[in-house]
Order: sequence, then structure tokens, then C-alpha cells
Amino acid sequence: MTGDAVSERRRPGGRSARVVAAVHQATLEILAEVGYAGLQLTDVADRAGVNKTTVYRRWSTKAALIGDILTRFARTNVATPDTGSLRGDLELLLSGIVEALGDRAIRAVVQAAVTVDVAEDDVRRARAAFWDERFLRSGVIVERAVARGELPSTTDVREFLETAASPLYFRILMTDDVADAAYVAAVAERTVRAFAGV
Amino acid sequence: MTGDAVSERRRPGGRSARVVAAVHQATLEILAEVGYAGLQLTDVADRAGVNKTTVYRRWSTKAALIGDILTRFARTNVATPDTGSLRGDLELLLSGIVEALGDRAIRAVVQAAVTVDVAEDDVRRARAAFWDERFLRSGVIVERAVARGELPSTTDVREFLETAASPLYFRILMTDDVADAAYVAAVAERTVRAFAGV
Repeated sequence: MTGDAVSERRRPGGRSARVVAAVHQATLEILAEVGYAGLQLTDVADRAGVNKTTVYRRWSTKAALIGDILTRFARTNVATPDTGSLRGDLELLLSGIVEALGDRAIRAVVQAAVTVDVAEDDVRRARAAFWDERFLRSGVIVERAVARGELPSTTDVREFLETAASPLYFRILMTDDVADAAYVAAVAERTVRAFAGV
Repeated sequence: MTGDAVSERRRPGGRSARVVAAVHQATLEILAEVGYAGLQLTDVADRAGVNKTTVYRRWSTKAALIGDILTRFARTNVATPDTGSLRGDLELLLSGIVEALGDRAIRAVVQAAVTVDVAEDDVRRARAAFWDERFLRSGVIVERAVARGELPSTTDVREFLETAASPLYFRILMTDDVADAAYVAAVAERTVRAFAGV
């Protein structure tokens, strides 16, 4: 098994990368079927066709696997809306969040990330990096709005995006309330009013 | 065991109530120590000094136990702020949320509620009832503000409260960012501006 681990390290684009891809794919499939509560590392290994020992050596807990998938999500390129207006960009951005959270596997990853224990430093770091990356990419919307004079130059980019996104996460994850296009539009309008005062 | 169940039903304020109270208390203690991921019904029974069979008969899953605790939380009387101004009431309300979520047991209950599976109807109902009750109680703040002319009479009470509370839940549960008094004040100010336009 030591030889196995060494060869994985030596060929990061080879067997190791295939194992990671298979395990991630298996995890997302299982999450889509049974959610985070039903996720078991042993089922992930079976589904991925990977030796259980290999899975346990790389991901010691379900949470570690979630952290790894969050890191992969953070690296995934998501197109930033560019409609020419802050309201338009914001509505598209928020609709994208609603759509993503409509995917049970993605929702399960986010739900799992919410329950990360204070002791799981690696997973918390992966989660923090995920949000940093998301806010960095989406921040372009705010910067363009400032350049167009739609928002004051003092606007806190992250607070603006959090204010816009959090009511949707709240409805989808906490209260299970409707988060439809009308709600998205109302949230976008209120966020602009809160920060621009218009 | 049938006799046991019958006697519990016949004396709701007796042994049954004591069992429920002991199990809830044990659950909150264990949640404060190890979080939801580490919660096991068997440990709850041990800690509560209650027969495992009794626990499993009443709460078939960890999620069912969380639903039950949410129902208890919903019935708990929380004082509604009454400072004479919307901003003042809102800051107190939001500070109360931050304080409550600072308690690891309460945070674990909310985290667990976020991960409720779509199939767990009882737990989802308990969660919905919890939020309905919370918004009903806190809605008094909005109604008073409308009466004072601080908010338009058309204000959607629930949307107002969600807009105020969600950025704090987002920071505490999702991003692990600072939710201090300055952030609470900024969120309160922005929420009032978003709805009152002032």
C-alpha cells in the first residue's frame, strides 16, 4: 500500500487524478440520491470502484470529502453576469444560486458545509476558500456598478453580495419557502436600495 | 412494553413528560459537546437514563429528535424588543439571534434543521412551525413600526424579518465570518433603508 501511495504522488495526472474524479462523481451521485445524512464512505468506494482503503487514506471522514468537493467547486468557472445594469446582473446571479441549489447534490454539499464542526479545520479552510473565491468572482458585478455610478465607491463588495444572496440561502436551506423569480427580483431591488439609497 | 407505552399516553404530565424532558436535556448537552454529526440516539438514552427502546420508540431518528426540540423552541417565550424605534428593536432582535447561535447546542439544532431531508415530513413540519412561530412573535416589531409611520403599511412582515435575519444566519452558519455589533447595526440600517426607502 505504501507503493500504491507513492505511485499516486508521482503521477498526479494519472491514477490519482482518476481516483479523485471517480470518488467525487460517486459522492455527488450518492448525495443526489440520499443526501448528506445517508452518505457513507464505504458506499462511495463501491460506487467509484475504488478500494475502500484508498478512500479512507485520502478522505478520513465524510466532511473531508465535502471539503474536497467544495475546493473543486471553488475552482469551477462560473460565468459572471454582464447585462449592463446592476439590477440585471444581480437578478441573473441570484437566479443562478437558486438554480444551483435546486440540484440536490449541490444542495447536499452546501448543507453539509453548514454543519462543519469547529474542530474540522481542513474543511473550514476549504469552505472559507470556496466563499472567498465565489465573492471574488461575483464582485466584478459590484465593481462595474460602482464604475457606472450605480453604487457609491465606498460599497463593501462582500457585504453587498452577502446581503443579496443570504435571503435566498435562507429560504432554500432554512425555511423551505418559495424562492421564485418574483422573490429574486424583490431581493435584488431591495439590495440595490439598501446600498445605493435609490 | 405495550403497557409502558399505554401508561405514558395516560399520564402525559407524568413519566412521559419526565422522559421527554430528560431526553431533550441530554440531547442539548451532547450537541453542545460533539455537534449534530456526533449525536447518537444510544448516547442520548444513556445520558438521559432512559431505556434505549423507549427512546427509539418515540424518536426513530436523530432528525425526529431535532424536530421535537424545534417544536419545544417554538413554544419557548422569547421577549420581543420594544425600544420605541424600529432600528433599536431590530438591533436587539438581531443581537439576540447572534447570541442564541453562539450557544453550540442551539447552533447544532439549527445546523441539523438545515440538513433535514426532503423525505422527513415530520421534521420539515416542525421546522416550518418553528419559523412561523418565530416570525409571528417578531412581527410585532414591524407592526409597531408601521403604526409609528416608520415603514409603509404594505410592508411584508415576513420578508422584512427574513431580510434582516438572513445575513446573520449566513455569516454564522455558512461563511463563519464575524457577526459583531457593528455588523448587526449595519444590517439593521440597511434593512430599514431597503423597506422604508430612508
